[in-house]
Amino acid sequence: MSRYLPILAWAPRYDRNVLANDLVAAVIVTIMLIPQSLAYALLAGLPPEIGLYASILPLVAYALFGTSRTLAVGPVAVASLMTAAAVGKLAATGTPDYLAAAIALAFLSGAFLVALGLLRLGFLANFLSHPVIAGFITASGVIIAASQLKHILGVKAGGENLFEIVLSLAGALPQTSPATVAVGLTALAFLFWVRRGLKPVLLRAGLRPRLADLLTKAGPVAAVAATSLAAWAFGLAEAGVRIVGEVPRGLPAPTLPPFDLDLWLELAGSAALVSIIGFVESVSVAHTLAAKRRQRIDPDQELIALGAANLASGISGGYPVTGGFARSVVNFDAGAETPAAGAFTAVGIAVATLFLTPALYFLPQATLAATIIVAVLSLVDFSVLRRTWRYSKADFAAVSATIVATLLIGVEIGVTAGVLLSVLLYLYRSSRPHMAVVGLVPGTEHFRNVDRHKVATDARVLSLRVDESLYFANARYLEDRIYDLVAERPALEHVVLMCTAVNEIDASALESLEAVNARLKDLGVTLHLSEVKGPVMDRLQRSHFLQDLTGRVFLSQYAAIAALDPGTARLARAAPDGLPPDSSGGSQAPSTALAVL
Amino acid sequence: MSRYLPILAWAPRYDRNVLANDLVAAVIVTIMLIPQSLAYALLAGLPPEIGLYASILPLVAYALFGTSRTLAVGPVAVASLMTAAAVGKLAATGTPDYLAAAIALAFLSGAFLVALGLLRLGFLANFLSHPVIAGFITASGVIIAASQLKHILGVKAGGENLFEIVLSLAGALPQTSPATVAVGLTALAFLFWVRRGLKPVLLRAGLRPRLADLLTKAGPVAAVAATSLAAWAFGLAEAGVRIVGEVPRGLPAPTLPPFDLDLWLELAGSAALVSIIGFVESVSVAHTLAAKRRQRIDPDQELIALGAANLASGISGGYPVTGGFARSVVNFDAGAETPAAGAFTAVGIAVATLFLTPALYFLPQATLAATIIVAVLSLVDFSVLRRTWRYSKADFAAVSATIVATLLIGVEIGVTAGVLLSVLLYLYRSSRPHMAVVGLVPGTEHFRNVDRHKVATDARVLSLRVDESLYFANARYLEDRIYDLVAERPALEHVVLMCTAVNEIDASALESLEAVNARLKDLGVTLHLSEVKGPVMDRLQRSHFLQDLTGRVFLSQYAAIAALDPGTARLARAAPDGLPPDSSGGSQAPSTALAVL
Repeated sequence: MSRYLPILAWAPRYDRNVLANDLVAAVIVTIMLIPQSLAYALLAGLPPEIGLYASILPLVAYALFGTSRTLAVGPVAVASLMTAAAVGKLAATGTPDYLAAAIALAFLSGAFLVALGLLRLGFLANFLSHPVIAGFITASGVIIAASQLKHILGVKAGGENLFEIVLSLAGALPQTSPATVAVGLTALAFLFWVRRGLKPVLLRAGLRPRLADLLTKAGPVAAVAATSLAAWAFGLAEAGVRIVGEVPRGLPAPTLPPFDLDLWLELAGSAALVSIIGFVESVSVAHTLAAKRRQRIDPDQELIALGAANLASGISGGYPVTGGFARSVVNFDAGAETPAAGAFTAVGIAVATLFLTPALYFLPQATLAATIIVAVLSLVDFSVLRRTWRYSKADFAAVSATIVATLLIGVEIGVTAGVLLSVLLYLYRSSRPHMAVVGLVPGTEHFRNVDRHKVATDARVLSLRVDESLYFANARYLEDRIYDLVAERPALEHVVLMCTAVNEIDASALESLEAVNARLKDLGVTLHLSEVKGPVMDRLQRSHFLQDLTGRVFLSQYAAIAALDPGTARLARAAPDGLPPDSSGGSQAPSTALAVL
Repeated sequence: MSRYLPILAWAPRYDRNVLANDLVAAVIVTIMLIPQSLAYALLAGLPPEIGLYASILPLVAYALFGTSRTLAVGPVAVASLMTAAAVGKLAATGTPDYLAAAIALAFLSGAFLVALGLLRLGFLANFLSHPVIAGFITASGVIIAASQLKHILGVKAGGENLFEIVLSLAGALPQTSPATVAVGLTALAFLFWVRRGLKPVLLRAGLRPRLADLLTKAGPVAAVAATSLAAWAFGLAEAGVRIVGEVPRGLPAPTLPPFDLDLWLELAGSAALVSIIGFVESVSVAHTLAAKRRQRIDPDQELIALGAANLASGISGGYPVTGGFARSVVNFDAGAETPAAGAFTAVGIAVATLFLTPALYFLPQATLAATIIVAVLSLVDFSVLRRTWRYSKADFAAVSATIVATLLIGVEIGVTAGVLLSVLLYLYRSSRPHMAVVGLVPGTEHFRNVDRHKVATDARVLSLRVDESLYFANARYLEDRIYDLVAERPALEHVVLMCTAVNEIDASALESLEAVNARLKDLGVTLHLSEVKGPVMDRLQRSHFLQDLTGRVFLSQYAAIAALDPGTARLARAAPDGLPPDSSGGSQAPSTALAVL
């Protein structure tokens, strides 16, 4: 029971101390979340109140089901961008259809995440490799920042990728509104200064570092208040500065998603993408924060919790949500101890929705755009390109494909390309496994690659170590390699396959081994195996292969050489450090008996 | 040059003996191919002459570019069924659009195969596992046989999968034509008898076994001749027996595919499927036959050769072709020595197209259907289900998915489902790798799974062997397993990862190892590695990991235990067979120095 409702684990031990800590954190997160939720709704192409709606019930749902004590759920930048990309394909921004599709997307994401969680399919998220995620987030950050420039310039523009955005902005440049640019640039400059320069000032003023840290998080609220005031006082709306305007007051009425199968089918792929990306982002934040306090996260339960949060978002007329990085860190630093902090934040946002919306009337959209730009630029980090280039070319290929496709085509294609390419590259590598011809290291019973070590071999015996499990994708490659190696060795009598790193032999590979066995038999060459692992051997015994095998299965490679090539095997006893040759025989004998792992 | 034109290798050594053998084989294959090419065109929903057209130029093209000496190219059952499925989605059978799409499909398949061959991407075909192919061919055989029943009954029916075909046949049953059933069942009975019963009769009559074998291959021609004669003599067409009718006389005029980008895009997926399936079928026949004569097949050149054959088929108004199994075996058994036999067969078919088409006027379609049914039922073999069930449940899942989806949905979905499922199951398994906690086997320096062997361990040291390369899909799983194992062991001071079977550590896995290292550090536990392979170590040295690692990288697991847990390591010297404990120390020492492979 408490597996599916983690709240049962912490609620009974809730006391006044914890309550105080959670309340403080909730107040701080609420102050941070109000401008963020308005801004991310803008980014998603939705009315500002939708951002607030997505910041109430989802937080309560996560508090009930989540296993992280400090994750702060709500609208986030990347999910908002992905919502805009998904819904923008189906309806025009600002229409009721657009809003309905965004709500349906939240429902679908929720249902998808809950289903994955109940089926315990959280491992699927692992196919998003770390570099692909890093590249995707970086590229998304660039696109988000670029997409907000239109609000800073006060022009109408669009575009789903960098190319379209830049083109559209360039075309709209002549319509630039000077007043809007003034507001936007001021807000941008202020927010950047808050992020970089405010903390040292506060520290010099004698504030405690933690308080200084938290005050800098209130920067966006200050910007919102100041520019709203300016817009009201100087009538900026008449000067061409677009303001938020009327925001409906009051809590959202419960809604059900439009029952429209076509719409659902069209959104299904996008829902899967936004869910998986949101889940991966969220779980990695949750893991990081939990580790700092020696707590554990249950990824499958996290799927259920995030799914419940998205269903709750849909019911309250919101759009897809997930755990946000910056917000969760603030929550953690502010001292949140339980998910109740999230529930208190929800209360804070609900209060704001009830009473503060009239105050948002004069808020310039340029201010919201500035908060988005400052927030997402901290996500942009191209160093993953340099790191993967140095470490692994396959990872570099996957991350560059992700970045290039995301920037130049769009977010959905971008992340899909990255995942597919990393899986394909992995399959490609495993389809051409490393194989080493090995020989005996004199004075030992060990066998090593003939290309890397000074080892003893014999023209009549070929020992081949395969460094990969044998399965359909590499079965034919193995066959070809063996035939080529055999063709080069006219004196050959025995082939020994050393299976130390073979963790599996599937049905295709078994057929290939049968073909190799039959073909070598025609050539008068005997096939042997050595060091076959227990589970692999168990399975081979359920086939005809061992009966048909022309040679034997040796417990160790040394046992194989001892039987097939005693001349070389004798070198094992020639101890290089001058000990009498036979002294090691006795104690090494058991190793062959134990060689089946 | 002779790499891309294998004809240059064999043509200079061509002599009268080889010519005689090739000519005999060509005559026999021609006799077999005439009814087959008509029948398979019928199966593909095309006019009969298209089957003949696809049996002329493609054979010449393969003779120029193919590396198999005995492969017989032309229309085959599975490719014909797939053509019907692909083209049937776009146009109604019998319309000019249907024919144009079939020709375009041949062109696209040809271009796709040539491109794969030039890019040396033949390995992609390896992702069709053996059981998936076996299941697909079996299910296709069932569908083909079922789809031909309408011609035996003399009714109009359709359907792409078994379900639709049976339903459509059931609805059409009242229209059954008794005369057609009589012809169809007679032909079926005769052909089955030829296949099963004729050879013993011929052998008893004193014929040589090979001649008897070849005569049985002429069964379809006999059936065609006899039923045509009967249809002419008894006016069966008036009795409701559908006959082939007018077949255009003369060679095909060169055609170009319709230049219609939409059509090409719609056919692209089908072209890829029909190409890959045809290639896999063809190459496996070619490999089998080549192995019998110690010849080699070059799969990448085979792609080019089959691609050229399909382009040739398109140019001559034909449809997709590939190497046929039964036909190639007949060619081989009849003594063909070079691809020239194929070119001579092409001449035979060209002659038939010029002079024999009037003789086909009275040929009942039921006879052609009967030859198809008898031919494809030999492809049906459900034993792959039993074999994979016993040997590997993952292979069983892939093959059953292929069979069920092919039978109940259709050929394209069927084979795609099989490939995707087998890849996903492989990825799933590699994402949850086998990991074993290992301990020292007393009296040796070997380490084995604590669950399978009597080994020595210590509460302060955890030795973990990972039996898989570490990559993005299993990085998180590794982390979780380590954290769980550490949580169970309060006295733990050291974790040693034994990397014998780790052939790669990608960037995601590296990040996970860094996270494990940091987290264990917080817990006061040191992380060590042992037996790291050379290439993996080279790469780790290009990262910060080795600097940050709290512990050491040991050359061997024994060296790690000797340093971290000398008490257990001392057990290595207690030789169980009574030798003095220190006698093996000297000669085993070099093994640690060589443990990096």
